[in-house]
Amino acid sequence: MSIKKSYTLEELANLIDAKLVGDASCIISSIGTLAHATTGQVSFLSNPAYTDQLATCKASAIIVDEKNSLNCKSSKLISSDPYLSFAKATRLFDNRPAPEPGVHPSAVVHETAELAPGVAVGANAVIGAHVKIGANSSIGPGCLIESNCQIGEGCRIYGNVTLYHSVKLGSNVIINSGSVIGADGFGFASDGRQSHKIHQLGSVQIGDNVDIGAGTTIDRGAIEDTIIEMGVKIDNQVQIGHNCHVGEHTIICGCVAIAGSVTIGKHCIMGGASGAVGHITIADKVQVSAMSLVSKSISEPGMYSSGTGHMKTSVWKRNIVRFQQLDSIARRLKDLEKHETK
Amino acid sequence: MSIKKSYTLEELANLIDAKLVGDASCIISSIGTLAHATTGQVSFLSNPAYTDQLATCKASAIIVDEKNSLNCKSSKLISSDPYLSFAKATRLFDNRPAPEPGVHPSAVVHETAELAPGVAVGANAVIGAHVKIGANSSIGPGCLIESNCQIGEGCRIYGNVTLYHSVKLGSNVIINSGSVIGADGFGFASDGRQSHKIHQLGSVQIGDNVDIGAGTTIDRGAIEDTIIEMGVKIDNQVQIGHNCHVGEHTIICGCVAIAGSVTIGKHCIMGGASGAVGHITIADKVQVSAMSLVSKSISEPGMYSSGTGHMKTSVWKRNIVRFQQLDSIARRLKDLEKHETK
Amino acid sequence: MSIKKSYTLEELANLIDAKLVGDASCIISSIGTLAHATTGQVSFLSNPAYTDQLATCKASAIIVDEKNSLNCKSSKLISSDPYLSFAKATRLFDNRPAPEPGVHPSAVVHETAELAPGVAVGANAVIGAHVKIGANSSIGPGCLIESNCQIGEGCRIYGNVTLYHSVKLGSNVIINSGSVIGADGFGFASDGRQSHKIHQLGSVQIGDNVDIGAGTTIDRGAIEDTIIEMGVKIDNQVQIGHNCHVGEHTIICGCVAIAGSVTIGKHCIMGGASGAVGHITIADKVQVSAMSLVSKSISEPGMYSSGTGHMKTSVWKRNIVRFQQLDSIARRLKDLEKHETK
Repeated sequence: MSIKKSYTLEELANLIDAKLVGDASCIISSIGTLAHATTGQVSFLSNPAYTDQLATCKASAIIVDEKNSLNCKSSKLISSDPYLSFAKATRLFDNRPAPEPGVHPSAVVHETAELAPGVAVGANAVIGAHVKIGANSSIGPGCLIESNCQIGEGCRIYGNVTLYHSVKLGSNVIINSGSVIGADGFGFASDGRQSHKIHQLGSVQIGDNVDIGAGTTIDRGAIEDTIIEMGVKIDNQVQIGHNCHVGEHTIICGCVAIAGSVTIGKHCIMGGASGAVGHITIADKVQVSAMSLVSKSISEPGMYSSGTGHMKTSVWKRNIVRFQQLDSIARRLKDLEKHETK
Repeated sequence: MSIKKSYTLEELANLIDAKLVGDASCIISSIGTLAHATTGQVSFLSNPAYTDQLATCKASAIIVDEKNSLNCKSSKLISSDPYLSFAKATRLFDNRPAPEPGVHPSAVVHETAELAPGVAVGANAVIGAHVKIGANSSIGPGCLIESNCQIGEGCRIYGNVTLYHSVKLGSNVIINSGSVIGADGFGFASDGRQSHKIHQLGSVQIGDNVDIGAGTTIDRGAIEDTIIEMGVKIDNQVQIGHNCHVGEHTIICGCVAIAGSVTIGKHCIMGGASGAVGHITIADKVQVSAMSLVSKSISEPGMYSSGTGHMKTSVWKRNIVRFQQLDSIARRLKDLEKHETK
Repeated sequence: MSIKKSYTLEELANLIDAKLVGDASCIISSIGTLAHATTGQVSFLSNPAYTDQLATCKASAIIVDEKNSLNCKSSKLISSDPYLSFAKATRLFDNRPAPEPGVHPSAVVHETAELAPGVAVGANAVIGAHVKIGANSSIGPGCLIESNCQIGEGCRIYGNVTLYHSVKLGSNVIINSGSVIGADGFGFASDGRQSHKIHQLGSVQIGDNVDIGAGTTIDRGAIEDTIIEMGVKIDNQVQIGHNCHVGEHTIICGCVAIAGSVTIGKHCIMGGASGAVGHITIADKVQVSAMSLVSKSISEPGMYSSGTGHMKTSVWKRNIVRFQQLDSIARRLKDLEKHETK
């Protein structure tokens, strides 16, 4: 089992870039929510909706900004960015079991694969020919890493992930279980009767510090590579089509569907279950709201949405009938306006 | 191969809580649809759309309600709830191969794992340290059960499922292939330049009698646990974010996307490919129609929808242009009405 | 590593059904895009948006139609269907590693399984009882093929795929990693308090030349089989519910969600992330645009859409308020029109 770590508040303050006001020697051994934290725990306030809970929070210390620190009864860890300090704290208290370096005897590693020092390969993993894995990277149980893949240093590939041949990962990449990187892009030429497969000759390149969730699929390119730049964060069950190019530090939430040959800029946010049709370009710093479809290129930063918002089904049924009459409604209104102004 | 079971109509009537009118000794060996059933099969009517097929159905017996039993030529199994009686019959005729108790020699089971009597562990499955598995549960081939997981009695985990560390399942839980339970929730704090991971310190708790489909992902909580209460039924490719709480007996259809920290009540139905944005609460007995997005909390039971309904693309193109003018249309209409009433 | 193949332009022209105008002995060793191809590569023009790039393309040869061939400076491979000729060329230059025939020593193959000559079974794959696999088919590492499955000739099942018991595949079927074929359909009968499972007694039948992407799920039928006809192409993360019937040569793009008992005709295209509610029928040659929901049967061929198109969120927020007033807007407009005509 993993070892739970403890810190004095003084140590903690230093480690999370906060200023301590309170008992420097108090021992903190875990993190709790404002509502449920108890003695020995640190909590945090970042969402203003929970400000009221400061007064009743039973944590030994709370990570807050200067302004809200006045309302804490406990010790305070004052931070200019409490959410970022909280993120640092979660790292300190992470109790996730670390993979053991070495190759599990049940793993099948091709004799030509090159594993740097500190690499862990889990039980029943399969590593193909000419694969290169950088120092301190781990490949979880049941993973399949096909031939010629290159994996950087410090990567964590959880169990049951599949990398098709020749996929390249940078360093410190995380890929969660069930994800599939480098399957064929979806390309067919029709002769009018049937579909002829376009063999996908490119691969996938994934930059440093990219996180990929569970059950996500990123297809290999048709001729050139699909590219995910450094710092991109991708949630679960995202689909990224062949020859997409996702810019640095963009965030792609769960269940997003990106068709092929889409270029997404840097520092974008694709909201949950949103999508983009193929062969379009989305500018830097675009945010797309949940379940919205981007149906043509977006050239200006900003927030974009589609959809109708939810309503009682009884109300909705009447309105969708009218939606189908909307063009007629607009024309008839224009006619009335003409009459009016005569 | 599995053994096909047969029952007399008398036995069958008792086993599915129906009243037999007809030949008690007739042997039934399988189930057929009204359209295609033949001699030796039992069929059923629950969807009124198929009532006409009663007259021509060639089954030896039909499960029907009292009213429709008059139209059957065959023997009748009269039930106050034919669909429920049909469900019971499907269980009787289930020909699915049962996993053999015992640990397959190719499985890798940590020496500290505790397996109760009757547990089956399939080929090439991997069971981590301190895992506890209750009596008569089965772990399919290729599964990864990480350390400290607890699995109740009578669970059936199909092949190639991944449970991350410390996930807890109740009893009689079913999880289908490719599903991933307990991967990290999607949490990052941005410093304006890049994203810092919020390590996910909670886990996932799944109650008794929960069914989970194939390719579904349920993320572990950030601080506290993600919770799926007893009797919840979840279909394929559903995504449930960190710290969600899904109430008892709620049904979540295929491809539903639930963002983080969503509370869903009891006895709800989330229609296929519907979704919910994060940090909202949905009351008990809410039904959300297919591909609808719940974009804020719902406090009243009832049916909710979003979207426009489909139409010919030629018609749709005209109407979506008008949708973007809708606020203007409404204002102009109001202006006209003012003129009118002057 | 795979061997890269080279062809003279004369050979290439014959193999892709094109007419050569240029240097017959020129050696071509790979494919490049119009923008990035260099000497020794062949490129192609099929999307008119790229016509301008012909003039500057550095490829040794370009696949074009008669009309555009006038603008090429390189050798030309003139085809009546350049995209189809390009598809044929991708096959020639495919450098994907081929699975080696034979059973990997770590694979677990049941003694009753029947493997035809040329079958490859990858490392740690598990093959159940009475499975039959046709000549030259390959089962990737980590796959689970449950008992009684039948797989035709020349199929390629990539790693970590799961086939539940009794699934039948035709010949030349491709299934990509993480896909699950034959998990239980989502069927429950409610007694008002809880849900009773309807055991799924059917299976799945998949025709010849069907392609299935990564992370796709196709459920087994409740009583009869789910059927995917020959030549159907299915992308990643598609969900097909129990008892669906998908007609020949239909194309289903990524993230499509099809509920149970849907009949889809032949030569249809379901756009990315589109969906269909249960128990409906979609005619032949229907095209559904991206993220559209088919909410009732479609009896006429043609293109169908739903949704609102995306817009700036600020504009959208005003319009969705009006959407909820749409029925009222339509009625008030009608009232005004009545007044007007008096």
